[in-house]
Amino acid sequence: MQPNPSTVTTPVTPTAAGEPGPSRVLARDLASVGDGRAAVLMGWVHRRRVLASVSFLVVRDRSGLAQVVVREPEALAALASVPEETTVRVTGRVSLNPAAPGGAELVDPVLEALTEPATAPPVELWRPTFGAGLPTLLDHAAVTLRHPRHRAAWAIASASMRGFRSALGELEFTEIATPKLVGTATESGANVFTVDYFGRTAYLAQSPQLYKQMLVGVFERVFEVGPVFRAEPHDTVRHLAQYTSLDAELGFVRDHRDVLAVLRAAVAGMVEAVRADASEAVATLGIELPVVPEQIPVVHFSEALSLVGADPDEPDLSPAHERALGAWALAEHGSDFLAVEGYPMAKRPFYTHPQPDDERWSNSFDLLFRGLELTTGGQRLHRPSDYAAALERTGTDASVLAGYLDAFAHGMPPHGGFAIGLERWVARLTGAENVREVTLFPRDLHRLEP
Amino acid sequence: MQPNPSTVTTPVTPTAAGEPGPSRVLARDLASVGDGRAAVLMGWVHRRRVLASVSFLVVRDRSGLAQVVVREPEALAALASVPEETTVRVTGRVSLNPAAPGGAELVDPVLEALTEPATAPPVELWRPTFGAGLPTLLDHAAVTLRHPRHRAAWAIASASMRGFRSALGELEFTEIATPKLVGTATESGANVFTVDYFGRTAYLAQSPQLYKQMLVGVFERVFEVGPVFRAEPHDTVRHLAQYTSLDAELGFVRDHRDVLAVLRAAVAGMVEAVRADASEAVATLGIELPVVPEQIPVVHFSEALSLVGADPDEPDLSPAHERALGAWALAEHGSDFLAVEGYPMAKRPFYTHPQPDDERWSNSFDLLFRGLELTTGGQRLHRPSDYAAALERTGTDASVLAGYLDAFAHGMPPHGGFAIGLERWVARLTGAENVREVTLFPRDLHRLEP
Repeated sequence: MQPNPSTVTTPVTPTAAGEPGPSRVLARDLASVGDGRAAVLMGWVHRRRVLASVSFLVVRDRSGLAQVVVREPEALAALASVPEETTVRVTGRVSLNPAAPGGAELVDPVLEALTEPATAPPVELWRPTFGAGLPTLLDHAAVTLRHPRHRAAWAIASASMRGFRSALGELEFTEIATPKLVGTATESGANVFTVDYFGRTAYLAQSPQLYKQMLVGVFERVFEVGPVFRAEPHDTVRHLAQYTSLDAELGFVRDHRDVLAVLRAAVAGMVEAVRADASEAVATLGIELPVVPEQIPVVHFSEALSLVGADPDEPDLSPAHERALGAWALAEHGSDFLAVEGYPMAKRPFYTHPQPDDERWSNSFDLLFRGLELTTGGQRLHRPSDYAAALERTGTDASVLAGYLDAFAHGMPPHGGFAIGLERWVARLTGAENVREVTLFPRDLHRLEP
Repeated sequence: MQPNPSTVTTPVTPTAAGEPGPSRVLARDLASVGDGRAAVLMGWVHRRRVLASVSFLVVRDRSGLAQVVVREPEALAALASVPEETTVRVTGRVSLNPAAPGGAELVDPVLEALTEPATAPPVELWRPTFGAGLPTLLDHAAVTLRHPRHRAAWAIASASMRGFRSALGELEFTEIATPKLVGTATESGANVFTVDYFGRTAYLAQSPQLYKQMLVGVFERVFEVGPVFRAEPHDTVRHLAQYTSLDAELGFVRDHRDVLAVLRAAVAGMVEAVRADASEAVATLGIELPVVPEQIPVVHFSEALSLVGADPDEPDLSPAHERALGAWALAEHGSDFLAVEGYPMAKRPFYTHPQPDDERWSNSFDLLFRGLELTTGGQRLHRPSDYAAALERTGTDASVLAGYLDAFAHGMPPHGGFAIGLERWVARLTGAENVREVTLFPRDLHRLEP
């Protein structure tokens, strides 16, 4: 039978209640239907293999792949008319076969296309490796993201978000949703997008920093997973104009070490969720998941400079320094993670809490993961007088921060927090060289589509 | 002892490891410390009651309220110096007392302020009802959100997000994160914010609609919880310039009824999460949670017009019609929910799937909750030829949708989805007249701060 797409616009999906015939079975469940029983697969034509004696159709659905054995002339003709990526409904009989993927295949199939024959993808999606460069991946994201390796990378992102929320939920953090349209670009001033807001100028929020602090005053412990925006004018492998920030902030801390302990719990939760919910993706990508130590080793910034043989007056760590520190943490502590605390106050934003015994340094830290910066966190100022002094010192106009400073005037606890960039985390976990490889539809200096 | 805030900048929070003295106990756990045992509370001064023979300090933390009994002259002097909302650390002894809230109170207290004495809030936050209007609430959100009723409303929002994700996670939906900066404003064209994007014009996404459809091609079932942006030029009680959209989209559906079944599961999950995780908030606000029927009753748009006595040529339902239909659903089906299906194609966006047997109508629906529109959903077109025709019919430029149309050329299943506005959902659940009452830092025509 030649499938006639025009006849199958509706109805196409039998569901359990009141529908004739067997309902849909997912690829991974094919064997469980039972040998010889009727079954319906629905999915994409992942691959066709036409051999002399027999042909195979591999159907892909959200659960994986299933093999269909095609022998009959009508079905062979139908197979010829459904190019790779066409969506199909395949009705047949289950045949248990230890040699087939998943231990079962579908035989005696009747194929129906659910749409028109698909245009050939820019790369063959059934090949184990993605056979094209980044421009092809990004220009044709709607189809190239279907490649198993790209689906796997996102499965890890998705599980990571779930693990982050779950770990913080257990610690009684409240999820918040903060404004992405803000009236003042005061957090850093640079690299901010402007928006025409009903005739006024608004800015896209570069982080939920000020709002999550204000909401510590309300809920004590808060987190947000959401987009942040940076008008990053440089074309690098690690910067995006929009990325997903995993933000947390908590009150009644002793200092930044309490913040680091929560960060440790969040990262451990992310790793656990990837292990539990994305194990196939981990296998597909051949990832070695890190062990998150109970206590993440910590070195002071000044000690870190000395460890890598840098000038003690250096204001920051270079990528080479970070790599060296990562190697040191692995050798010395057997840890993929290292926290560097005490970064110079001069390089940190106005709300940063100084180190009490030496105000050149700050109560803040960077967390390095395998020698790359994963996240920045620390303790914030919480006393109104400290804010007044910090704003004067940094030349910041207090009047534009009135709504934020309100929180401090009305009583705030000692607090701190951190932010993890989802895409960077996934890139480092998967070994992707460019964050764009692990981002759905990335945005950058040159790219606003698709 | 007069607390001297300057001495308590750090360290303030004893944690379990290696710290002298008892660690912090949350208000709700005070009784469990045991009668006569030492305990430390940390939180905000919720209320002070100074009586002739004895005074009380009520401390608020994330878990609730705890009562401190103040008799000693030093402690009374300290109490006088910590106005409401000041953050404090209170060390004392637990006294079990059935008359105290939670069955225990703290006695023999030593008070330390963790910050400078707080400025008086614009309303007394300890009063059970919020004693001011909307402008005060919104202008001073950093402090007014601390009122128990406003914290409760957001606890319901937070639980609702968790329930939505959990219900869809169980149905094997993949969480996605889509671009909020888009190159074309084609989904509706109107009410879109423009952004200066590295010298080009970009737009803020009004919904993840086109992206979630594309990603059905990748993951089959997807959801996103994130901000969406509408340059809504009208000042109404139900519109915001930014709101949180709970979006879902799924493939291999028979028609919009399969989408409605998933929407039903999502809403049921939200209600269950509110019941399980926000029971105190429900009690504080006196909310009656709805029962979500196993099958949400459905009427056709044409039947709905007839039920409310409207002209059969009406293109839409008015708010009065929706209220009448809500009353009808309750009377006829005992249901707080009613789905109206088959809205006229003329009023729906270009990707809407028509009703197969009568193309005047669509395979889409609105879900009414207690007589108010909660969400819109439906089946979308999935065949490239149908898109070509729809774009021509609606006069839409196909070239600006190239990345989106790519998905259909490369094989898409019959699919559909829905979107729930978080703030509207919470407003309806809590009976708030204005969505701004249940939004953290709302944005509208007039408001971009705090």
